[in-house]
Amino acid sequence: RDENMNSKAPCFGLSELKSWSFWRAGIVEFVATFLYLYISLLTIMSVKKSTSYGDLLCSPECLQAIAWASGATVSALVYCFTAISGGHFNPVVTFGFFLVRKISITRALYYMIMQCLGAICGAAVVKAFQKTRFELLHGGANLVNYESEVIGLFFEFFGTFVLLYAVFSASDAKRTAIDSHVPVLAALPVGFAVFLVHMAATPLSQTGINPARSLATAIVHGKKKGWEDQWIFWLGPLFGTLLAALYYQIVLRPKPFKSRA
Amino acid sequence: RDENMNSKAPCFGLSELKSWSFWRAGIVEFVATFLYLYISLLTIMSVKKSTSYGDLLCSPECLQAIAWASGATVSALVYCFTAISGGHFNPVVTFGFFLVRKISITRALYYMIMQCLGAICGAAVVKAFQKTRFELLHGGANLVNYESEVIGLFFEFFGTFVLLYAVFSASDAKRTAIDSHVPVLAALPVGFAVFLVHMAATPLSQTGINPARSLATAIVHGKKKGWEDQWIFWLGPLFGTLLAALYYQIVLRPKPFKSRA
Amino acid sequence: RDENMNSKAPCFGLSELKSWSFWRAGIVEFVATFLYLYISLLTIMSVKKSTSYGDLLCSPECLQAIAWASGATVSALVYCFTAISGGHFNPVVTFGFFLVRKISITRALYYMIMQCLGAICGAAVVKAFQKTRFELLHGGANLVNYESEVIGLFFEFFGTFVLLYAVFSASDAKRTAIDSHVPVLAALPVGFAVFLVHMAATPLSQTGINPARSLATAIVHGKKKGWEDQWIFWLGPLFGTLLAALYYQIVLRPKPFKSRA
Amino acid sequence: RDENMNSKAPCFGLSELKSWSFWRAGIVEFVATFLYLYISLLTIMSVKKSTSYGDLLCSPECLQAIAWASGATVSALVYCFTAISGGHFNPVVTFGFFLVRKISITRALYYMIMQCLGAICGAAVVKAFQKTRFELLHGGANLVNYESEVIGLFFEFFGTFVLLYAVFSASDAKRTAIDSHVPVLAALPVGFAVFLVHMAATPLSQTGINPARSLATAIVHGKKKGWEDQWIFWLGPLFGTLLAALYYQIVLRPKPFKSRA
Repeated sequence: RDENMNSKAPCFGLSELKSWSFWRAGIVEFVATFLYLYISLLTIMSVKKSTSYGDLLCSPECLQAIAWASGATVSALVYCFTAISGGHFNPVVTFGFFLVRKISITRALYYMIMQCLGAICGAAVVKAFQKTRFELLHGGANLVNYESEVIGLFFEFFGTFVLLYAVFSASDAKRTAIDSHVPVLAALPVGFAVFLVHMAATPLSQTGINPARSLATAIVHGKKKGWEDQWIFWLGPLFGTLLAALYYQIVLRPKPFKSRA
Repeated sequence: RDENMNSKAPCFGLSELKSWSFWRAGIVEFVATFLYLYISLLTIMSVKKSTSYGDLLCSPECLQAIAWASGATVSALVYCFTAISGGHFNPVVTFGFFLVRKISITRALYYMIMQCLGAICGAAVVKAFQKTRFELLHGGANLVNYESEVIGLFFEFFGTFVLLYAVFSASDAKRTAIDSHVPVLAALPVGFAVFLVHMAATPLSQTGINPARSLATAIVHGKKKGWEDQWIFWLGPLFGTLLAALYYQIVLRPKPFKSRA
Repeated sequence: RDENMNSKAPCFGLSELKSWSFWRAGIVEFVATFLYLYISLLTIMSVKKSTSYGDLLCSPECLQAIAWASGATVSALVYCFTAISGGHFNPVVTFGFFLVRKISITRALYYMIMQCLGAICGAAVVKAFQKTRFELLHGGANLVNYESEVIGLFFEFFGTFVLLYAVFSASDAKRTAIDSHVPVLAALPVGFAVFLVHMAATPLSQTGINPARSLATAIVHGKKKGWEDQWIFWLGPLFGTLLAALYYQIVLRPKPFKSRA
Repeated sequence: RDENMNSKAPCFGLSELKSWSFWRAGIVEFVATFLYLYISLLTIMSVKKSTSYGDLLCSPECLQAIAWASGATVSALVYCFTAISGGHFNPVVTFGFFLVRKISITRALYYMIMQCLGAICGAAVVKAFQKTRFELLHGGANLVNYESEVIGLFFEFFGTFVLLYAVFSASDAKRTAIDSHVPVLAALPVGFAVFLVHMAATPLSQTGINPARSLATAIVHGKKKGWEDQWIFWLGPLFGTLLAALYYQIVLRPKPFKSRA
C-alpha cells in the first residue's frame, strides 16, 4: 500500500487479480463490514431494548451509546485492517480512494461487492439472534423521520464529507512520508469523525454515511418502509464523497501546490 | 509552519499575500470553523430535543453529550487541519499565536475574518434545517444564566486560559524539535481541554471560549437576548489568552531559560 | 519478547523455568487479572447500586459505564503490563498466543493458573467489602439471561474473536518491526475492542470473553446459579480464539504471503 | 529530566535551589493542582446541581461525568506539564518519585507545599463563585459515606496503587530510552487509571487518591464533617504509594533483573 500512496494506481489494474494480497484484501473487507454491522446493530438493540420498543428517536444517553459504539468500532477496525486492505469497509470510502486514484476500478468494485455482502451477513446474524427486537426497531434501518427528505439528504451529504475528509487527511502522502506509523494513529481521528456525525445526525436521519449499512439493513429488514428512503443514503454519501475528493485534490493535496508555494 | 516554530514570524508579513498556501490556510480555517459550529450546534439540537425545549440548563447526560461532541470535534479538526493552517478555528487561538509571534498580523486578521464567516455560515445552515428547535433553544447562543456577569466572565477567562495552555504546550518548539509527529498527537490533549472546559462551565455560562462561535450564534439567532452578554464572550477569552501567552513566555518558553538553567 | 515476535517459541520451553523474568511475568499476570476483576466488579456494584438491586439488565447509562470501565481497564493494563508479561490477563489470549506459537506450553499453563488465581482474589476482595451488593447482583457472575444458551454461546464466540483479532493485529510482527512503540499504541484499539463487545453483548449474555473472570465470579459467588452457564463462557471464547488464530495464520500473517505477493 | 530517568537523584539536592528550572517547576505544580481542583470541583457542582442537592451518592451518568472529567483533566495536565515539572500535581506521586529516588527530598517537599497551596486556591475560587452549591455538596469534600472506615481506607490504598502503577510504568527508563515521546503517550493510560479508580470508588469513598485535593476541600469547606475522615485520605494513598514503589523496585524495575535474566 505504501507504493500506492505516492503514485497513482493503474486505472483498471487487472494484473492485481493474480495476487493473493488482492483477494485477501477483499476477504478482510468482508469481515470488517460484517463486524461493523454486527456490533453497531447489536448496540442499537441493547440500548433501545432497555428504554422503549419501536421508537426511532432516542434519549441523550442512547444517542451517546450508539455514537460511541459506532465511532469505537470504526476506530478499532481501521487500526486492525488498514495494513491489509486499507481499512475501508464503506463503499463511499472505496469510491473516494478510487476518485483520488489510489486504487484501481477493479479493486474498487471488488471491495464494494465484498462490503455489501459482509454487511448483509452481519445484519442477518443480528436478526437471527434478536428477531423480536430487530422487528420492533425496524432492523436499525436508515429512515428519515420527522424531517423532510431534503434535510436527510443534506445530513448524509455533509456527514460523509466529514468522514471522507478525516480519512483523506489520515492517508495524506506528506504525513506518511515523514512518519511510518501515522496510519496507526489515524484510527483515532477517523473514529472521532464517525462519533461526531452520529451525535449530530442520528436523531434526525438515523445516520447512514455507509451505503453498505443502509442497503444491508433494508434487505434484511425486508419491509417496504426500509426501502422508501434508500436513495437518500446512497445519493447523499455519493455527493459528499465527490465534494471531499474535490476539496482534497484542489485545496489540500500537498504535491501540486508545493511547487507554487 | 515548521520554520515559524523556531523563529519569530514577521510582524506584518505582507509578502505572504502572494503565496497560495496563505489563501489556502484561510479557506481551511473557514471550513473548519463551519464544521465546528455545524456539529456542535446540531448536537445541542439533538440532545436538547429529546429532553425539554427552551431550557438552557441540562442534565448530566446532556452535559456529557455536548462536552464530548465539542471535544471530539476540536480533536478531529486539529488532527485534520494542523498541517495546512495550524488548526486554529478560534479567533483567540489565532490571537494567542500572534502574541507569541508565531504568525503575522496580516495572517491573524485574515484568519479571524474567515473564522467568523465560517461560524456564521455553520450556524445559518443549522438554523435553516432545524428552524423550530433553533428558536426554542435560543440558537445555542452563549448566555449567562442564573449567575451574575462577573462569574460568566471569570469562567470564560479561565476556560480560555486552559485551552490556550494546551494549545501552546502542543506547539512547543522543544517538543516538535525532538519528534515530528507531536502535532498529530496534540489533537487528543487539546480535545480533552475543550471537553473539560465544557464539563465545568456549560451549565453556568454556556461555554463560549470561542468568540467566533459566540458572534455567529448571536447574529444567526438575531434576538436582542443573544447580544446582551456578547461582551463577556469576547472580553473573557481575550484576557484568558493574554494570561496564557504571558505565562507561556515567562514560565514555560524553553529557549530563554535553558541558558540560565 | 521482541525475539519471540519474529520466531516461534519452543513448544515446551522448560528452560524458561530457570529465569526470573518467567516467574515475574506470572506475578504480573496475577496482579493484572486481580486489578481487572477488582475494578470491573466494583464498577458494576457502583453503577447497579444507584439504580436497582438484583436486576441483571441495565439502562443505556449503566451499560456505558460498565463498557467504558472494562475497556479503559484493559487499555491501561495492556499499556502497563505488555513490556513485562505480554499483558494477557485472560486465559484465551494466552491460549491464542500459544496457538500461533508465540509462547511455550509451559508458559501458557503457568499464565492461566496465575490469571485464575488473580481473578478469584480480585472477586473475593470485592465480595469482602461489598457483601450486600455482591449478593444482590449475583456477584457480577456471567449468566445468560432472557436468551437461549445458543445465543449466549454465539455472543461469547464472536466477542472473543473480535478481542483476539485486535490483540493479534497489535502484536503483528510486520508492525513491530517498523516501529518499536507499536505495543504502547496498541493499548487503545484493544481497549476499544473490549468496550465494543461489552456494548453489544452485556444486556444479553453479560459478556464474559474472559474465562478467568467467569470462573472467579462463579467460585466467589458460590451459588448453583452461577455455575449453570459456566460452560458457555469457556466453550464460546475457546472457539472464538481458534477461529481468530486460524484467520490470523491463513489470511493475515504477513510472512508467508509476502513471498507470494 | 532525562538524566534523572537513568540515574538516581541526589538525596537532598540543595544545589537545585539555585536553578530557575527548580522554582519554575514548583510554579507549574501550583498551577496544575489549581486547575485540577478548579475543573473537577466545578464538574461536581455542574453535575450534582441538575439532579439533587446535598446528596453525595450519584447516578450512573453523574458517576461517568465525574470520572471522565477527572481522568481527562489528569490526562491533559500530564501532557502539558510533564516536560516542565514531571507533571505530578499530587503529593503521593511526588512521594512515589522520591521513594524510587527520581527526585530529591528538597524538590519533593517544595512540590508538596506548592500542590497543597494550588489545591486550596482552586477550591477557594470554586467556593467564591458557586457558594450555594458548594455548601450543599459539602464542598466536594472526601467523606466516607455508608461504609465503614476500613473499606474507605482500603479503596484509597488500592486506588493509589493503581494510579502510581500507571505513573511508574509510563516513566519507565527502559521505555523512555527506546522512544523519546513515550512521556507524551503516557498521558492517556494515566488518565484512564484515574478514570477507572473514580468509576470503582466514587460512590463508596468519594475517591481521594490525592491528599492535596482532600486537604484543600476540607480546609475550604471549613466544617468539622470534612475533617473527620481526613486521615483516611492521607494514610490510604501513602500505603498505596509504598506498595507501588516496592512492587516497582522488586518486580518491575528493568535494570537489576536484566543482568539476571
